[in-house]
Amino acid sequence: MQIDPGTLDQTSIYKLLISSVVPRPIAWVSTYDADGGPNLAPFSYFMAITDQPPTIAFSCSPRASGKKDTLTNVEALGQFVVNIVDDDRAEQMNLTSGEYLREVDEFALSKLTAVPATKVTAPRVAEAPISMECNVVKILPVGRAHLTIGEIVHWHVRDDVYDPTTGRFDMHRLKPLGRLTGNLYSHIHQIFEMKRPNPDYRG
Amino acid sequence: MQIDPGTLDQTSIYKLLISSVVPRPIAWVSTYDADGGPNLAPFSYFMAITDQPPTIAFSCSPRASGKKDTLTNVEALGQFVVNIVDDDRAEQMNLTSGEYLREVDEFALSKLTAVPATKVTAPRVAEAPISMECNVVKILPVGRAHLTIGEIVHWHVRDDVYDPTTGRFDMHRLKPLGRLTGNLYSHIHQIFEMKRPNPDYRG
Repeated sequence: MQIDPGTLDQTSIYKLLISSVVPRPIAWVSTYDADGGPNLAPFSYFMAITDQPPTIAFSCSPRASGKKDTLTNVEALGQFVVNIVDDDRAEQMNLTSGEYLREVDEFALSKLTAVPATKVTAPRVAEAPISMECNVVKILPVGRAHLTIGEIVHWHVRDDVYDPTTGRFDMHRLKPLGRLTGNLYSHIHQIFEMKRPNPDYRG
Repeated sequence: MQIDPGTLDQTSIYKLLISSVVPRPIAWVSTYDADGGPNLAPFSYFMAITDQPPTIAFSCSPRASGKKDTLTNVEALGQFVVNIVDDDRAEQMNLTSGEYLREVDEFALSKLTAVPATKVTAPRVAEAPISMECNVVKILPVGRAHLTIGEIVHWHVRDDVYDPTTGRFDMHRLKPLGRLTGNLYSHIHQIFEMKRPNPDYRG
């Protein structure tokens, strides 16, 4: 079948797009507001862009009631933390996905610990296996969304997920959560290996 | 443990970043070069940005030998197709991840069928469950990479993955592949549901 998005209403396009780009990693973004109040919300329109310098991006669409607190905060302070969600934190992450009044502290709501970051003015989730402290590089309007691009200036990592023999995080220990569509998520336990066809090619 | 990327070499930063942002969806990007030759390559630095209008982005870093063919082609023609990779196409996708000479046709190499797209000048992978035809909105330099932002103008969907009762693609039938780190991938079969805490909130 073929689908021309120009013939569809906005909700139908939303459903097609969010179920096409799967599985998605989750950026659990923590910020302070201008008064120092902590905020925490998950975003799965999220990507790595480059390691030189280490740069990530997440996209923030307006909610029914207006601009999301996260976007207000990164615009005001220019700094944020991306925390990674593992299986053990799935339900707490989901609690923070609700739409709450601005004064609600999602850390308290979901019984998580907000710890001040090391190099940026933002809290991090103490219970997350990986936290990446970021400075805003650019906030780019794209359609009705804003794409926030940030450079990572500091990593916090739970010791057991770091594999010193590879210099990478151990996927079996990290157990990252994958976001799908609707209310669906995926565990990332069925891991398999495929070697690149020509690892030594330098043509 | 804490890690300051400013103290690390580039390879170490690469390994940290690519193992932090997981699991990643895969954009299997098909393009024509200026002479009409087809090109196909996978990119997992890939995201949805917004449904209004439907917009996605992928990031392209230079390879050892210089600019990647995909970036050369999207710069020249301003159009591309993102195909989604399912379990059944994993090995063919992996074949197209090698670095090959510019004249190599990755469709032929991996025994895939290049079909002209409907609305853009690019081929699509006939065997992919979902293909999204895109016009380039912007190519943004970010560090050593280029972020290509594209608007989706047409979807091709294998009939059995579309669920008319939800208007979404069926994750159990789609079986999308998740990218991790090193040579590791994940099957997305362990799907579970979490309902939003306040689906009716309009505060």
